[in-house]
Amino acid sequence: MTVRVGIIGVGVMGSDHARTLVANVPGAELRALCDADLASARAMADETGAKTAGSDPLAIINDPAIDAVLIASPDNTHRDLTLACLAVQKPVLCEKPLAPTAQECLDIVAAETRAGRRIVQIGYMRRFDPAYVEVKEALRSGQLGRALMLHCFHRNVSAPPWFDAGMAITNSAVHEFDIARWILESEFTSVRVFRPGASASGGAGSPVFLVLETSSGQLVNVETFNNAAYGYDVRGELVCEKGTVSLRSPVNSETSHKLIQSLPYPSDWRARFATAYRVQMQAWIKSVLTGSPAGASAWDGYASAAVAEAGLASLAEGRSIAIVLNRRPALYG
Amino acid sequence: MTVRVGIIGVGVMGSDHARTLVANVPGAELRALCDADLASARAMADETGAKTAGSDPLAIINDPAIDAVLIASPDNTHRDLTLACLAVQKPVLCEKPLAPTAQECLDIVAAETRAGRRIVQIGYMRRFDPAYVEVKEALRSGQLGRALMLHCFHRNVSAPPWFDAGMAITNSAVHEFDIARWILESEFTSVRVFRPGASASGGAGSPVFLVLETSSGQLVNVETFNNAAYGYDVRGELVCEKGTVSLRSPVNSETSHKLIQSLPYPSDWRARFATAYRVQMQAWIKSVLTGSPAGASAWDGYASAAVAEAGLASLAEGRSIAIVLNRRPALYG
Amino acid sequence: MTVRVGIIGVGVMGSDHARTLVANVPGAELRALCDADLASARAMADETGAKTAGSDPLAIINDPAIDAVLIASPDNTHRDLTLACLAVQKPVLCEKPLAPTAQECLDIVAAETRAGRRIVQIGYMRRFDPAYVEVKEALRSGQLGRALMLHCFHRNVSAPPWFDAGMAITNSAVHEFDIARWILESEFTSVRVFRPGASASGGAGSPVFLVLETSSGQLVNVETFNNAAYGYDVRGELVCEKGTVSLRSPVNSETSHKLIQSLPYPSDWRARFATAYRVQMQAWIKSVLTGSPAGASAWDGYASAAVAEAGLASLAEGRSIAIVLNRRPALYG
Amino acid sequence: MTVRVGIIGVGVMGSDHARTLVANVPGAELRALCDADLASARAMADETGAKTAGSDPLAIINDPAIDAVLIASPDNTHRDLTLACLAVQKPVLCEKPLAPTAQECLDIVAAETRAGRRIVQIGYMRRFDPAYVEVKEALRSGQLGRALMLHCFHRNVSAPPWFDAGMAITNSAVHEFDIARWILESEFTSVRVFRPGASASGGAGSPVFLVLETSSGQLVNVETFNNAAYGYDVRGELVCEKGTVSLRSPVNSETSHKLIQSLPYPSDWRARFATAYRVQMQAWIKSVLTGSPAGASAWDGYASAAVAEAGLASLAEGRSIAIVLNRRPALYG
Repeated sequence: MTVRVGIIGVGVMGSDHARTLVANVPGAELRALCDADLASARAMADETGAKTAGSDPLAIINDPAIDAVLIASPDNTHRDLTLACLAVQKPVLCEKPLAPTAQECLDIVAAETRAGRRIVQIGYMRRFDPAYVEVKEALRSGQLGRALMLHCFHRNVSAPPWFDAGMAITNSAVHEFDIARWILESEFTSVRVFRPGASASGGAGSPVFLVLETSSGQLVNVETFNNAAYGYDVRGELVCEKGTVSLRSPVNSETSHKLIQSLPYPSDWRARFATAYRVQMQAWIKSVLTGSPAGASAWDGYASAAVAEAGLASLAEGRSIAIVLNRRPALYG
Repeated sequence: MTVRVGIIGVGVMGSDHARTLVANVPGAELRALCDADLASARAMADETGAKTAGSDPLAIINDPAIDAVLIASPDNTHRDLTLACLAVQKPVLCEKPLAPTAQECLDIVAAETRAGRRIVQIGYMRRFDPAYVEVKEALRSGQLGRALMLHCFHRNVSAPPWFDAGMAITNSAVHEFDIARWILESEFTSVRVFRPGASASGGAGSPVFLVLETSSGQLVNVETFNNAAYGYDVRGELVCEKGTVSLRSPVNSETSHKLIQSLPYPSDWRARFATAYRVQMQAWIKSVLTGSPAGASAWDGYASAAVAEAGLASLAEGRSIAIVLNRRPALYG
Repeated sequence: MTVRVGIIGVGVMGSDHARTLVANVPGAELRALCDADLASARAMADETGAKTAGSDPLAIINDPAIDAVLIASPDNTHRDLTLACLAVQKPVLCEKPLAPTAQECLDIVAAETRAGRRIVQIGYMRRFDPAYVEVKEALRSGQLGRALMLHCFHRNVSAPPWFDAGMAITNSAVHEFDIARWILESEFTSVRVFRPGASASGGAGSPVFLVLETSSGQLVNVETFNNAAYGYDVRGELVCEKGTVSLRSPVNSETSHKLIQSLPYPSDWRARFATAYRVQMQAWIKSVLTGSPAGASAWDGYASAAVAEAGLASLAEGRSIAIVLNRRPALYG
Repeated sequence: MTVRVGIIGVGVMGSDHARTLVANVPGAELRALCDADLASARAMADETGAKTAGSDPLAIINDPAIDAVLIASPDNTHRDLTLACLAVQKPVLCEKPLAPTAQECLDIVAAETRAGRRIVQIGYMRRFDPAYVEVKEALRSGQLGRALMLHCFHRNVSAPPWFDAGMAITNSAVHEFDIARWILESEFTSVRVFRPGASASGGAGSPVFLVLETSSGQLVNVETFNNAAYGYDVRGELVCEKGTVSLRSPVNSETSHKLIQSLPYPSDWRARFATAYRVQMQAWIKSVLTGSPAGASAWDGYASAAVAEAGLASLAEGRSIAIVLNRRPALYG
């Protein structure tokens, strides 16, 4: 059986998903796509051989010839579109964040709980990145003892003018919230946000530094710096009682020239996480075929959104904010 | 259109190809496979959903329901099976080496030349490895000036007892012969083989060290050490007039424990070259669909075999051996 | 002229200083040493050829045949011994911290101010470490833009049972306070201390995580983990507007064995900072000869102690503590 | 007792030795120096406080107020000056090579043998480099098994116009000959020289590639590239039966900027081997004081010169040349 996929939104992220699906995922077919920008939809349809559904996401969701939906439209559309997929019980891979607010995520959790089975996967692709997988395996092996701290650094080359400190939390740091929860298998209990350089540069893309604590007494700190200029760079170190394990970024070659040994940085996340996106897509298609869920759930999407909301409060109030999650429905284990 | 593939030989290499095809290559279908060992054929057929053609490679090659053939059977079967594919004009990806001797390769070159179009691709997968691709690009960019030397190191954890110094050349070093020709875009003119530790360990898998010269005056040295014990490790450095460029091996994470910062080596080539094998397979399927050849040609297979033969002569005689290639047919550019 | 040096305290640190002086510093002579433990004093005197002054530090300080004094006795003796050196206007290199409390440091600052010239140097040897020097130079070069964040990690293999979270601040983190002030050329304005794993391990040597802010709006975070087990490891990354610069630890060789590429960690600070200690000692002797001060001043010692005290308050109270320094006397520029 | 040192020749190397001695070696005094260039002698005398002996090396050697002599004058003066030191039984540290020809070295060996004690040390400073020391220790530890191959790379930024392929062997590669003999504790038995790029660039400073074999069946290859342009870079890897150990070059910091992570190369050997030169000088002064020899002997100087001569023959004749050393006098163990 071939899974017929529809993609909603073919901006940078949706286009990348479309190409990944077409190039690397046997057992799937990119049947249709849509975008608010019709020219983008047309261009990507031409490139991939898919049909275009114009600008209408419901035409994708409700198309009986489409088995599964990938949502890569703007964050503020995620809730309604995901609920529409749930209404027709159609498997959905929704880009992160699941929704901008925790309450919207809870709406989805409630709908999925009513549906009685896992239908929604969130595009927290780092769970499929070999580096993070190895970090989690190192912790699970027990040889390093218990986890004490996780240091996370998330840097982009440049942020658009409208990217403010709040988005650094709700859009960038959520990756770290999710992966930390996945690695540590603990929930966050508090967050304190700091703004280095706030007085000086003030504007969009200046760094944000978060210190979080978990129910197991672990400390997680997250630097997000969306105007880091020098390159796209995601680092992480898990510090345990007996040792540490760190991510290494993929680098294929090094050059020596003009008194410098140099290693390249990618300019954005696509090169850094190409494997993660590919493996995530293959895992999602497999989960559609088998009915066995993979990756981050709607509940995980809610948990990260709740942490992000507490982060926004800390950013506004300049103090530690406690994080209290709802009770987890049995559907989410 | 879907390319229906048959695989001949499902040992370590053929099984890996089968899994890569099934997991990562849209537009292809693994239709059938065979192996001299019927149990292996049955097991891999069960795993992949392919049919088994028992132990008969011709049942694969001549099956009209199979569009393309992958040959991963023992080296000494390559010539006849590739000729059989050429006889029915069926696209073939033949594992390296194309054949154990230069003459056998020339037989294939002759048959393909008669066919008048490129049908044969050789599984020199390093041409699709991102690290080697970047080395070639760095040279082509011109910023490092002309290439002067290429230092190659090729180490395996352990060799089987029957793996002698000759096989280190004909089976291992051929990878370096091919990739050096591809990067340098020059042909080899001489080879001198040295045998470190020969008197002491003498046996299978002891290192072999080759010094080769190209028609452009470049020096290429190749160490193959098939009993290197410590890990599977392929290194390469291209030294140019103004700088150098080196391969880096993929490493996802590093661990600090017991006064050691440690980075893992893979135990064999599959992890090191997983990307290369995947991209090679996707490129081959695409070439079958488009008719536009990709990767190493039968001529490239002949050239590496000719270098290997000169290497065997040098190994036997302890002196430099000149390498003279036949005239290249127009089919090969 | 030869500078005749007396050393007070020949525990681990004082012995290391004695050996460094004798082996590497022309123009100086280790004349005498003392220690509360007479056997230690005797052993080090025998090793270095110095005289022993028994357990009496004043016999060193007041000896007219001694030109300069190095204090490496316990922290709680630093104030009185440094004041005794100031009383006789004898140049002194005092191990860090200058004193356990800010008030004690101010006593020394006051005495030196009365003396009217710089006599006291603090053993914040990192200012002489080539890696930190390069970080400071990179910032000063301007190519990376303004400094925004400094991430510091300070890990020891194991802490003695009496080493509590307060000492992690007053004894370990003070190194980071000093080097951050020196690199950033800013004063700290607030500190917030977090205790990862507090509930679980609770005891001595569990990690402490500090987030500090400077008068220039920079954020400095410091992890001190005195029971890190895996090795002695000091890391630092300065994040600027256009790029970052990071310390690299000295490693002379790497080994590949048993599927691991391994780089050694030192078991304590002596190997990591051997160059810094040597250069510091040479700079101190030169400053004694020339009368031109080098390294960290008594004021620097006070500033770090004041930050440490605020850190202790934050540790006790679980909130951010503001840091307000006294007015800097003109003597300290 | 203070060792009063005289330095003959204060070009780049001699000046560096003078500064190292003055800055880092207690127990020694730089008493006098001379140079064929009187202005250089005067300038370095002013800088170091030494007397100048004008351009007359014998005024240094025969000065009763000088206890030990460091020879850093041109290679072709080494034999006569070393013999003059031997004539007055004055300890001498002679820069490498001991002399341009094996026969000249044998003259010195003969004179020292007649003297009946070790008086001559050769400035093969790599024996004091921490990286090479660790490589030797790794081999001696036995954990890697027997040594099979040593891969050496020796690259300079640029060579003077008169620096030809012969000098690449007699002046550069001799470092590798010496350090390989020291690590492997074997003598060389043959050498084969290759000239990559010879036809193309032809001139001074183009690379030379040597393949040597030892009496223990080990293979040593040496690339010397004196116009490598990109930086001063010395690499080495010892390949053993069970694993390998490699040099790492000292790097204090790394910078991330403009999509590049960069590590600096030094522009010449002084930064790379600063520690080795310092430790060598301290060891030499100690050996003068104790009478116990350190470092490379006159015999070692002869052995490397003999290998270099065979290398010159191979360069001229394009074939392997056997290396046969004289019988080693008992003085050299």
